[in-house]
Amino acid sequence: MDFLVHISIKLPPDMARDESEALLSAESERAAALAKAGRLIRLWRVPGQRANWGLWRAADATELHEALTSLPLWPYMRIDVTALAKHPNDPAE
Amino acid sequence: MDFLVHISIKLPPDMARDESEALLSAESERAAALAKAGRLIRLWRVPGQRANWGLWRAADATELHEALTSLPLWPYMRIDVTALAKHPNDPAE
Amino acid sequence: MDFLVHISIKLPPDMARDESEALLSAESERAAALAKAGRLIRLWRVPGQRANWGLWRAADATELHEALTSLPLWPYMRIDVTALAKHPNDPAE
Amino acid sequence: MDFLVHISIKLPPDMARDESEALLSAESERAAALAKAGRLIRLWRVPGQRANWGLWRAADATELHEALTSLPLWPYMRIDVTALAKHPNDPAE
Amino acid sequence: MDFLVHISIKLPPDMARDESEALLSAESERAAALAKAGRLIRLWRVPGQRANWGLWRAADATELHEALTSLPLWPYMRIDVTALAKHPNDPAE
Amino acid sequence: MDFLVHISIKLPPDMARDESEALLSAESERAAALAKAGRLIRLWRVPGQRANWGLWRAADATELHEALTSLPLWPYMRIDVTALAKHPNDPAE
Amino acid sequence: MDFLVHISIKLPPDMARDESEALLSAESERAAALAKAGRLIRLWRVPGQRANWGLWRAADATELHEALTSLPLWPYMRIDVTALAKHPNDPAE
Amino acid sequence: MDFLVHISIKLPPDMARDESEALLSAESERAAALAKAGRLIRLWRVPGQRANWGLWRAADATELHEALTSLPLWPYMRIDVTALAKHPNDPAE
Amino acid sequence: MDFLVHISIKLPPDMARDESEALLSAESERAAALAKAGRLIRLWRVPGQRANWGLWRAADATELHEALTSLPLWPYMRIDVTALAKHPNDPAE
Amino acid sequence: MDFLVHISIKLPPDMARDESEALLSAESERAAALAKAGRLIRLWRVPGQRANWGLWRAADATELHEALTSLPLWPYMRIDVTALAKHPNDPAE
Repeated sequence: MDFLVHISIKLPPDMARDESEALLSAESERAAALAKAGRLIRLWRVPGQRANWGLWRAADATELHEALTSLPLWPYMRIDVTALAKHPNDPAE
Repeated sequence: MDFLVHISIKLPPDMARDESEALLSAESERAAALAKAGRLIRLWRVPGQRANWGLWRAADATELHEALTSLPLWPYMRIDVTALAKHPNDPAE
Repeated sequence: MDFLVHISIKLPPDMARDESEALLSAESERAAALAKAGRLIRLWRVPGQRANWGLWRAADATELHEALTSLPLWPYMRIDVTALAKHPNDPAE
Repeated sequence: MDFLVHISIKLPPDMARDESEALLSAESERAAALAKAGRLIRLWRVPGQRANWGLWRAADATELHEALTSLPLWPYMRIDVTALAKHPNDPAE
Repeated sequence: MDFLVHISIKLPPDMARDESEALLSAESERAAALAKAGRLIRLWRVPGQRANWGLWRAADATELHEALTSLPLWPYMRIDVTALAKHPNDPAE
Repeated sequence: MDFLVHISIKLPPDMARDESEALLSAESERAAALAKAGRLIRLWRVPGQRANWGLWRAADATELHEALTSLPLWPYMRIDVTALAKHPNDPAE
Repeated sequence: MDFLVHISIKLPPDMARDESEALLSAESERAAALAKAGRLIRLWRVPGQRANWGLWRAADATELHEALTSLPLWPYMRIDVTALAKHPNDPAE
Repeated sequence: MDFLVHISIKLPPDMARDESEALLSAESERAAALAKAGRLIRLWRVPGQRANWGLWRAADATELHEALTSLPLWPYMRIDVTALAKHPNDPAE
Repeated sequence: MDFLVHISIKLPPDMARDESEALLSAESERAAALAKAGRLIRLWRVPGQRANWGLWRAADATELHEALTSLPLWPYMRIDVTALAKHPNDPAE
Repeated sequence: MDFLVHISIKLPPDMARDESEALLSAESERAAALAKAGRLIRLWRVPGQRANWGLWRAADATELHEALTSLPLWPYMRIDVTALAKHPNDPAE
């Protein structure tokens, strides 16, 4: 089942640069692992923002929650999830 | 360039069933043509609504506008477009 | 998988009383069938409104969409769906 | 009388891990006690968020307020309550 | 149990004056009956609008729903209900 | 003249318990004095929130402002005021 | 007592030109009468819209409601009222 | 003085095609005249919508209002105006 | 040219009383100077809030920006500006 | 391709004056460089706010994102981007 997920990230303004870079690098690694596991399908940046739109896939909302909360940046994220149904006109069908 | 497009459709309550079915069938045909032309990439339904989220591709917003306004249901649509930037963690990259 | 569904209904002000009563009675029948099929679990009224909150169950958003659009009042409904994940403190678990 | 309750939780970013774990564990205990007392009926997670939707039962809004404010995480919660009326199509009736 | 109720009314612009006056007069009568029955406690106008704030009393949301939907103008109303809990500083306590 | 007043309170998370209890107790005293002076007529809690709806009475908005800003918790309050007009169907008239 | 009043006007698209012109002219006359009576103090247009911001004066919200509902265009208006308190820095004081 | 103007257009669904085409063509002519007069500086389409963002120039809001209401489509427009101040980093300065 | 300006003020909760009183007193002085210069015409308080509605006059938005940013409390203000056009029914005309 | 960009800036209230002035001066320099590179075309201030509306030009949203995030004030900015399509009535065409 597909989910459209909007994530915006707000790092504390006084976070040390080392810490934020370590977090962002751990985030990339975890995203790659979730992609490999078939959870994260596509990811785009919202221009000008530290925010993204992603296409995620999971058996259900519980599995999706586990994937999303496994992201190192999760404590700094605001996440909104839309469950997606199949559309008869989807070119991928 | 990719665009995330949200479309919601409101048919007039007094539209004859013949007319609405003809429109929906013309819509499917046009969607298929736009998919073939590389404009429409993916399409999902919002559950419970006559609305969809789509991934569209166009050279720029002008080309996207031409594609969207070529849809037979366009006069009945409310469309919101988000321009998407590439994300370094996108599995498709 | 559980879904929280908010439905508000707006009948055309000029709909004949016969027609609206027939629709509401067909709606009750269909709701009973969906309950029997395990799709509709619970349903509450929003006081003062022709609107309701419901607990629905379906394999995924596509199956949910089919259930919701099978309701006779669907053309007059505005529906908002929230996918629900399991909570460790849920008394029903 | 049933109430639909939406709770979102925002822990201070600088709260020590020990403290937050103690709070979350006390929260689970209190939730179990409220379930036993017939206040908390069902609880679901909003995927991706530290938020939940719950079905609560109380004699009136005053009793509900007492139950909600007895939660250890209450000082960190934003709570929205909807009073629910019985629906003739509710499968549980 | 007390409820704070906001009601806004939108009569169809083409309703005949006779009909609207008959409705408004039936509304006053029904409001008086609900006041006598202890449902409607206080009522104020929102200045400039065909809208009001009211203090209502009912055993629960189901009884409140019955009272509100018994109003002759109900089909033309948008109603929002807030369940009220007792406040220790309420002068009426 | 009557006013409907919504007040929500946000105490700083790091306020010492002694200080917050002293403030809340001073608040109750001031509320009682304002009730005696005929400014504060009724007060209800919003269930689950540190917020209230109140019925206030004052000669005009200037006198109301003085009453509201005399509350010890005022620096921590977000206040929204609605001026109320008399309604011919008000049971209290 | 002063009130800040925002009025937006929506004439039915199919209103005959004669009728709308008669209404607008009656509106000007009534506005002049309300100005003479000391109710309407100042009036400005919102550029590009059939809407205005006005400074009104009345003993209370009930008197203001009577003034506003006496406007010939009232059935086509959406009105929002803000009660104003005196400000110590007001140059007119 | 510059103004940023957002215009969205809603033609009645039952307007005859002849009439709408005549209106749109008159609109283009009037836009050209306003451009020549120095009122309309730039104009862009919002992709997917019958809406536009425009840069307008006028001595003040009154002159701008006259320009905007001279558009043949004005009765079908929703217009929002933002007054713009000069920015020291503006490349055009 | 007239502008309707809404200003809300949020002082840091930990600002020393001396500092805030000095700021508020400097604010009054600057407001008086702007009134003398013909920039600030009228000012009203929003009851219950540290916020105000004001009528300002300036040659254009740039001159208005200079006046507003000259206020000592500006760093703590949220300001929203509406450009006003003349209304033919304005009693002051 | 053109983009309409709204930027609002929120500097931490406790930032030293030296630091903020250095940032604002670096911002001006970077804006000038982006103007020279053809990214930033026009820039206007929102009166009363530390916010601006800008007309930006880039090959696509990815190039725009790089330009916007190169601004020294970017960590303190909230940015909203609208992709613009060509309008047949644009005077500049």
